[in-house]
Amino acid sequence: MNSNRYIEPTRDQFKELSARPRLNQQDLDFFITDVFNQVQQNGDGALMKFSEQFDGVCLTQLVVSVEEFDEAVSELQTELKQAIETAYSNIYTFHEAQKEQPISVQTMPGVQCWRKPVPIERVGLYIPGGTAPLFSTVLMLGIPALIAGCREVVMCTPPQKNGRVHPAILYAAKRCGISMVVKAGGASAIAAMVFGTESVPAVNKLFGPGNQYVTAAKQKALQFGLAIDMPAGPSEVLVYADETANPAFVAADLLSQAEHGADSQVILLTNRQEIAKRVEVELDRQLMALPRAQMAGAALSNSKVIVLSDEQDAIHFINTYSPEHLILACKNEEIFVQGIFNAGSVFIGNYTPESAGDYASGTNHTLPTNGYAKNYSGVSLDSFVKKITYQKISPDGLKLLGKAIMVMAEAEQLQAHKQAVEIRLRAIESGELETIPKTK
Amino acid sequence: MNSNRYIEPTRDQFKELSARPRLNQQDLDFFITDVFNQVQQNGDGALMKFSEQFDGVCLTQLVVSVEEFDEAVSELQTELKQAIETAYSNIYTFHEAQKEQPISVQTMPGVQCWRKPVPIERVGLYIPGGTAPLFSTVLMLGIPALIAGCREVVMCTPPQKNGRVHPAILYAAKRCGISMVVKAGGASAIAAMVFGTESVPAVNKLFGPGNQYVTAAKQKALQFGLAIDMPAGPSEVLVYADETANPAFVAADLLSQAEHGADSQVILLTNRQEIAKRVEVELDRQLMALPRAQMAGAALSNSKVIVLSDEQDAIHFINTYSPEHLILACKNEEIFVQGIFNAGSVFIGNYTPESAGDYASGTNHTLPTNGYAKNYSGVSLDSFVKKITYQKISPDGLKLLGKAIMVMAEAEQLQAHKQAVEIRLRAIESGELETIPKTK
Repeated sequence: MNSNRYIEPTRDQFKELSARPRLNQQDLDFFITDVFNQVQQNGDGALMKFSEQFDGVCLTQLVVSVEEFDEAVSELQTELKQAIETAYSNIYTFHEAQKEQPISVQTMPGVQCWRKPVPIERVGLYIPGGTAPLFSTVLMLGIPALIAGCREVVMCTPPQKNGRVHPAILYAAKRCGISMVVKAGGASAIAAMVFGTESVPAVNKLFGPGNQYVTAAKQKALQFGLAIDMPAGPSEVLVYADETANPAFVAADLLSQAEHGADSQVILLTNRQEIAKRVEVELDRQLMALPRAQMAGAALSNSKVIVLSDEQDAIHFINTYSPEHLILACKNEEIFVQGIFNAGSVFIGNYTPESAGDYASGTNHTLPTNGYAKNYSGVSLDSFVKKITYQKISPDGLKLLGKAIMVMAEAEQLQAHKQAVEIRLRAIESGELETIPKTK
Repeated sequence: MNSNRYIEPTRDQFKELSARPRLNQQDLDFFITDVFNQVQQNGDGALMKFSEQFDGVCLTQLVVSVEEFDEAVSELQTELKQAIETAYSNIYTFHEAQKEQPISVQTMPGVQCWRKPVPIERVGLYIPGGTAPLFSTVLMLGIPALIAGCREVVMCTPPQKNGRVHPAILYAAKRCGISMVVKAGGASAIAAMVFGTESVPAVNKLFGPGNQYVTAAKQKALQFGLAIDMPAGPSEVLVYADETANPAFVAADLLSQAEHGADSQVILLTNRQEIAKRVEVELDRQLMALPRAQMAGAALSNSKVIVLSDEQDAIHFINTYSPEHLILACKNEEIFVQGIFNAGSVFIGNYTPESAGDYASGTNHTLPTNGYAKNYSGVSLDSFVKKITYQKISPDGLKLLGKAIMVMAEAEQLQAHKQAVEIRLRAIESGELETIPKTK
């Protein structure tokens, strides 16, 4: 492991050590704008043209048919169906527990205020194509959308070379109640969900990972009033390992992050150099057996090994770095859990690999990268609802509250705000509650 | 009221009728980039320079002193202090009720998953200056920040001509436990909270309204990894009034929106033309008495009056428009409350003016405009926390869950993800749980 090793760096070095590599933000704006224009103007026709150009597939029908869904169900191996079922059940259970009841408070007698979560009406899920079918992401986005009760869930994913969508993706979609799956990939798929086409409904919020084109297109979507799940960046893990950690397990966890791609961020933080050395021996051994060894090796060569013997320094470093995934393989895990306030998702103990949360334990795998764990949450049920506040004030309530409103409005020089209360209080006092006469 | 009247428009016209005027997005990028560069390079010096240039004030000290706070407390009129106290109490009560307990679920035996809200460490509140001191916004942002437990809350607001901050702003800040108030305004204040200066700490998330420069600077802040409360747009109200509404109250509510500025969006939706006419008479009468009559008149001339006799059409229109503020002055309010899923905050009944929520009833007044009520919530306690997920799996739990993870990882061609489970299961089976030896 040709990683960069830092022995007992001082706290004033933490910020620099936590810096992510500058994203190579190519200026894709010209390309993305063109794709958006074409999709806006030509709808399905543009999607088909792009599919021919980029996926090498001539489609006559963009929306996956009922027959294709049925075929997927019958084609998929039983073992994989059972695995998906286990994951589905756990993810459903954990996200259902996030359901929030309306909150209602009488802040003063006669002044009732409440807040209610309401599903976002239409959401769009993007599932990347490529060599591996990311059906796990279908579950991670589809299940909370289902629980939230979004009225319309549309999923876009590029077709395979044979013009079909991978059966595992369709199976997972069906399991989440998603019937609208569109064969469309990249920026054009995002554009379709922004503007709507003959086949694709326009949505209010976009979710899902993707390459640089998808990321740029999601950014562009913001300009058209859509919301997105969160800003994107390469995936990350930070493992904190002390002498109670198992070096082979730690190495396996680092590698499972590294295999995502050469830009994956992999950090080993430990209290002893000896641990770093033993993990490195394991890394070399395990790396060779991996099919994605080259990619993982590239990620490892950019990785960092940091030795901090003081626990509070280690906690301080973790909060500064704010990892997407944090694995705690250490004896004082409770001190770390209490002390850490910047992380996307935390995996505790020797038997809790990141891959559990990536697939099946129940937590969501769509998490803030690139330091965004400081100010963003991962995807959860919350991501699929907005919360509306309500209030109803009785005449007696307004008599109690009115003075404060009027004094404050006057001090902010907003006379009409004051007037809206005053005119009501006068009517209450006088008993003249004029409304529109009932006759037409 | 020279408004545009639409009698029984059809549903296919709703989208066009709901379109907001295109924001005159001037290209401020060159200016904002320059301000950001200067603040990043010269810190406090740049802030002082900009304050001299834009506020006409030579500052030698940017941070409000303890003495200035004390003076504000003693200067402020008792009546206004009491009003602020009422508002504080109600806003605190409503936002405290939003506190979320950690959620913990055993998704399978031995697989424990939980989620905990954690305060965002450092938040920055921007309070605009200008003629009127927006101390109500201090409460709306400062109270949830206090309840959330953010470690550092910094507030920036431009100084008045006398070099001081309005006492009502300082009083409200002090009441919210904010001791760090910086005399800085516009894009330079935002830049200071992005990069940090000698006096101003850098923050993780920015909140607060502002002019086009502040809005553009907040957008720019996103590029530096900060989060912001929500996208900005002119304030809006939609009043739905039927024959049980009071025309004078409706007119007062429309005017209290209109006085915010010429770009305010004001919509009256009613089931009868007669109601529109009577509200218009009231508008003309009340408008003349307002100090901001000209501004309010300009907003009214861009306003819309829409008549829809069918309730379901009215509900459909409201959901299409997605107003920031929705006032329901109608007999079947329950049908509307149930049917409406796109709105920022809803005010129900004849005695619930928008100004109640603007100031003192308890709900937050920082709300999604410009159609963003479709996919954003208003500011709440949630805006000041992120939610971290955790999991801990026992050896027995991994034995139960491991197969599903391995099958799914294999199907996604992520071999190292599978390996991270396999290596642990092998160790559990063999009983060989190697860890680092205890001796150094």
